[in-house]
Amino acid sequence: MDLLRSPFRGVIADVKGRAAWYRHDWVAGLRSGFRILAPTMYIFFASALPVIAFGEQLSTATNGRLTTVETLASTAICGIIHSIVGGQPLLIVGIAEPTIIMYTYLYNFAKKQQGLGEQLYLAWTGWVCIWTAIMLFLLAMFNASNVISRFTRVAGELFGMLITVLFLQEAIKGIISEFNVPEDADSSSPIHQFPWLYVNGLLGVIFSIGLLYTALRTRRARSWLYGVGCLRSFIADYGVPLMVIVWTALSYTLPSKVLSGVPRRLLSPLPWESSSLGHWTIVEDMISVPPAYIFAAIVPALMVAGLYFFDHSVASQLAQQKEYNLKKPSAYHYDIFVLGIMVLLCGLIGIPPSNGVLPQSPMHTRSLAVLKRQLLSKKMVDTAKKSIGKSATSLEIYGKMQEVFIEMDSEQNADSVDKELKNFKDAVLQEGDEEGKLAREFDPRKHIEAHLPIRVNEQRLSNLLQSILIGGCVGAMPVIRMVPTSVLWGYFAYMAIDSLPGNQFWERIQLLFIAESRRYKVLEGPHASFVESVPPKTIAIFTIFQLVYLLICFGITWIPIAGILFPMPFFLMILIRQYLLPKFFDPILLRELDAAEYEELDGVPHEHTLEDEVSEVGSCISRPDAEILDELTTNRGELKHRTSSLREERPVQVPSNAVQPSL
Amino acid sequence: MDLLRSPFRGVIADVKGRAAWYRHDWVAGLRSGFRILAPTMYIFFASALPVIAFGEQLSTATNGRLTTVETLASTAICGIIHSIVGGQPLLIVGIAEPTIIMYTYLYNFAKKQQGLGEQLYLAWTGWVCIWTAIMLFLLAMFNASNVISRFTRVAGELFGMLITVLFLQEAIKGIISEFNVPEDADSSSPIHQFPWLYVNGLLGVIFSIGLLYTALRTRRARSWLYGVGCLRSFIADYGVPLMVIVWTALSYTLPSKVLSGVPRRLLSPLPWESSSLGHWTIVEDMISVPPAYIFAAIVPALMVAGLYFFDHSVASQLAQQKEYNLKKPSAYHYDIFVLGIMVLLCGLIGIPPSNGVLPQSPMHTRSLAVLKRQLLSKKMVDTAKKSIGKSATSLEIYGKMQEVFIEMDSEQNADSVDKELKNFKDAVLQEGDEEGKLAREFDPRKHIEAHLPIRVNEQRLSNLLQSILIGGCVGAMPVIRMVPTSVLWGYFAYMAIDSLPGNQFWERIQLLFIAESRRYKVLEGPHASFVESVPPKTIAIFTIFQLVYLLICFGITWIPIAGILFPMPFFLMILIRQYLLPKFFDPILLRELDAAEYEELDGVPHEHTLEDEVSEVGSCISRPDAEILDELTTNRGELKHRTSSLREERPVQVPSNAVQPSL
Repeated sequence: MDLLRSPFRGVIADVKGRAAWYRHDWVAGLRSGFRILAPTMYIFFASALPVIAFGEQLSTATNGRLTTVETLASTAICGIIHSIVGGQPLLIVGIAEPTIIMYTYLYNFAKKQQGLGEQLYLAWTGWVCIWTAIMLFLLAMFNASNVISRFTRVAGELFGMLITVLFLQEAIKGIISEFNVPEDADSSSPIHQFPWLYVNGLLGVIFSIGLLYTALRTRRARSWLYGVGCLRSFIADYGVPLMVIVWTALSYTLPSKVLSGVPRRLLSPLPWESSSLGHWTIVEDMISVPPAYIFAAIVPALMVAGLYFFDHSVASQLAQQKEYNLKKPSAYHYDIFVLGIMVLLCGLIGIPPSNGVLPQSPMHTRSLAVLKRQLLSKKMVDTAKKSIGKSATSLEIYGKMQEVFIEMDSEQNADSVDKELKNFKDAVLQEGDEEGKLAREFDPRKHIEAHLPIRVNEQRLSNLLQSILIGGCVGAMPVIRMVPTSVLWGYFAYMAIDSLPGNQFWERIQLLFIAESRRYKVLEGPHASFVESVPPKTIAIFTIFQLVYLLICFGITWIPIAGILFPMPFFLMILIRQYLLPKFFDPILLRELDAAEYEELDGVPHEHTLEDEVSEVGSCISRPDAEILDELTTNRGELKHRTSSLREERPVQVPSNAVQPSL
Repeated sequence: MDLLRSPFRGVIADVKGRAAWYRHDWVAGLRSGFRILAPTMYIFFASALPVIAFGEQLSTATNGRLTTVETLASTAICGIIHSIVGGQPLLIVGIAEPTIIMYTYLYNFAKKQQGLGEQLYLAWTGWVCIWTAIMLFLLAMFNASNVISRFTRVAGELFGMLITVLFLQEAIKGIISEFNVPEDADSSSPIHQFPWLYVNGLLGVIFSIGLLYTALRTRRARSWLYGVGCLRSFIADYGVPLMVIVWTALSYTLPSKVLSGVPRRLLSPLPWESSSLGHWTIVEDMISVPPAYIFAAIVPALMVAGLYFFDHSVASQLAQQKEYNLKKPSAYHYDIFVLGIMVLLCGLIGIPPSNGVLPQSPMHTRSLAVLKRQLLSKKMVDTAKKSIGKSATSLEIYGKMQEVFIEMDSEQNADSVDKELKNFKDAVLQEGDEEGKLAREFDPRKHIEAHLPIRVNEQRLSNLLQSILIGGCVGAMPVIRMVPTSVLWGYFAYMAIDSLPGNQFWERIQLLFIAESRRYKVLEGPHASFVESVPPKTIAIFTIFQLVYLLICFGITWIPIAGILFPMPFFLMILIRQYLLPKFFDPILLRELDAAEYEELDGVPHEHTLEDEVSEVGSCISRPDAEILDELTTNRGELKHRTSSLREERPVQVPSNAVQPSL
């Protein structure tokens, strides 16, 4: 491995690359003015909810040793550090599910050890963090990020599916728990007696399913048919937190006869309560950890380091997809180094460390692309309007607009801008008359919408501001504690289901259940390209292999202490993918099933579709086609007449041509 | 009106027309063998559930005077009569919502009258039925069915929407009632105390919404992607009763600590209890009704007669749409006469009369079309197989198959069969080689599926059998009483929502809420033709007029006694449609909005759709197009690459062409 021969090469290149832009990173953010608040709020809400949910999960799992206060604090502290000294400011960091699972295993291990116990749990995790940080430093030093292209779809989606399954497990366990008396609770209290316990459980079912359903619905608001565009956008962007608020509000509208304590609400302590204040002495405790355990911490540290390296890199990669036309360099190596620093710091103050998160990171890039477009568009239209007033030619106006674009763009190379703006230029020039004069009604906005290339407002301000807001949530704990726990279970189910579309592993699992004769339905809609390019049998075998592997991974998480090794199969998967799978599958097909990019094909109309003439409706009556007749019948039983084009073809209708009774 | 000049002309023509087929009506049914049970069971389940639901509604509304026992009895008795002596045996009769509403008004009126009271309620309804029957006889005599072509879509859909609103009202009132102590109940019983009352209400919410959601889902099972075809068909055909059974079964899995009586179940008395046995003396009571009330009964009778004439005719019309290629004559006039007899009989034994119902009637025709096709197909394939064995030419084989078709078809005219079978003939002849010989692998089934014209097994047996089964339900009351009332509220909501798709009035109401800029979405999918042929403004004005009219109609149902006139606005609507509306709307557009047939156009791809190249994704980033980006992004944040055709166009992918970190 010649990577080892040039230590720090990657980190140094990254630092040099980003340093040149560092001033611009802030200037670009400040220049956006108040508009920067839109992406900030968007990412804040997208980040805050899962961090709160994971905090509650961690609190139950560690018997209150770590709570929402700690997960929020970690996300805020690491976010602030990353946005100021990190390499790629588009990357969003936070507490994610793997961290929660890891810290749960560490807790379960520690509390049973005589040398540790609950008392030294956080001190020991401090040691785990120290080892993890050392490993991350080594990975950064020896340019390990060069291998991230081997983290292919197969391993990533397998991991994603495991998280989905764990979310669902958490949701189901949660809903069941609403019917039972909680551990450590006073079981003689009236709210823990039967009818009230049952009321709590039933309300839990209603709230969790209600949240799940409404959140899934609002998520797709942008494509709703109804309502004004900006309202739909708002609902799509903020629908999930909105629904948490709505269902929480509903939980306060119950009749007054319902005993207080029903439904149950979040348990997290307030940050100013004594149980939240023990973290500052963790460093002292760390010395008390017996040396054997200090060295034993290397094992979980290996897992955490691998996990974090993997997650952080993939999140960063997805925030920097080439379609976003980013102009500033990436910083994978340096960001792993910064991650090491954050892990070290979090370990020393006894809170779980944060890493790069999905899907918030690419969501961040996307919202900044929309922002940049608004800014560009506004300025270019203003300039054009001014020039039209002076009755400039279309070429002059285009020149002015191009000037604005280059000025606002971070790109230095005017040639490539020329190329990117070619379509736009052509469109503007076409609008001029013979002398190139533009009409007063000429609307540059239209062409800007249609032809302006994508640009992202690459800056650090939105990331910094959203991290500070997350920190502010620690102060909002009294409000957060108003949320019923059942809403949280619904949110876990939502996270599980929402992560499925677009996961090709999931799409392939669904394909397993579609009969051969129904495949045309898949082909009719937009579908991933592998559906056409890989034989069904190969898809099936590959998917079943992956499914069995997933079950093994899920099984491992149930093993009490060895469960801590749950990331192992994923590291192993990377090797299996590279060395073993090509022996069983045609490498070309394998590449299709494990494509780096998600390629989608448009649907092709199936030959059997409803293009038959009305008179041939009869030909569809046979059993398998009863479905077509179903589609052609209204719910009252009226038959619909279907014509493929407009009205010329059909006779003008007179109302009296309905069925005539015989005389 | 020259209709009046030739009394009985229509009835006599109908009787002659149907008498010629009467023997065949039975033979055709018996010849189908056991297969006739499929359409029988299908219609039985589709009929039984609403009749039970309406019975429960009536029971609450009339304080138990009329219950599910009576609605089932009426449906069974009238069904048996209609299937044996009725004209059109495809028409299904039963108790429908308008009857329930009428009988509720009659009860509320009667119980407040000193001369009637609860005691003479049924006797008085006997008089209403007598008057109604007389009016129906007159309508049949004077060939009134000739005007049914004036019952246009506008009036029909308005009526349908009112029923929908009333169903929803019933569902909501029902769910709310689950939280309250029922009238006449012992309010000191523990199940009517707070925590238990609340448990009952919460279970009500879960069961009713659960039934609604699962029933709506199974309704569409035939177009599911997953599962085997016959299973999907079964679920689509029997999903709703199946879900009633499933949710009823779930209601028995509650923990044993739940008090008995929670959740509440149906209340109907058993048919052999004394309260169900009072009907046989109704005729005696009828003499006790004061003469003033006997004549007052003419007013409700007018409403009932109009309603029944309207409903019966429309149901019959939809069961005989011309696309079904029915071979036996219709019998509108005669069926109104038979309806009169059924009303008279029901009145005299004190049960509410039945009339033609939607959507069961067209469902019946459709299921018989499927059956006929199976029979034809089987016999023709057998014949063809035999001939292939003898290596006959394609022409010979076609000849044999045509013979079978004509033999099994009720059509006498061989010419028209030739025309209808032309496509099928061409397809078979094409398969022959130069000498017209067919290969041994030749599969006639394929061509039969594709080219056989639609035929309906027009017979009386399925209607008779399903009526007898409905009658059998009276004996199954102990089982029916196991259904929780909340499942019934969910079923009312299901009936309301299920009636909406295909109702053009509803589709136009939805259009009101779609912004101009989103109309292209409607045009992209299959859509009713009026969307293209009528200007949006005209659609909007027409729809708002109809909506206001609907609100007035709904308002009328709330008026205590005058509410009995609720069908008036619909009769009025027929006149308004004919004489008043053409003065305000262009008659051509009016004909489009009130078309006799439901005409649907295929979707046309919108110019703005995702046909842009990948490199132009940037052009879609502006706010209104954020939706497109949404569609192009997986939930993990990955961008999808969309290509409209197959893979030739794109570069072969190497996994390592993911974003490469700089070195």
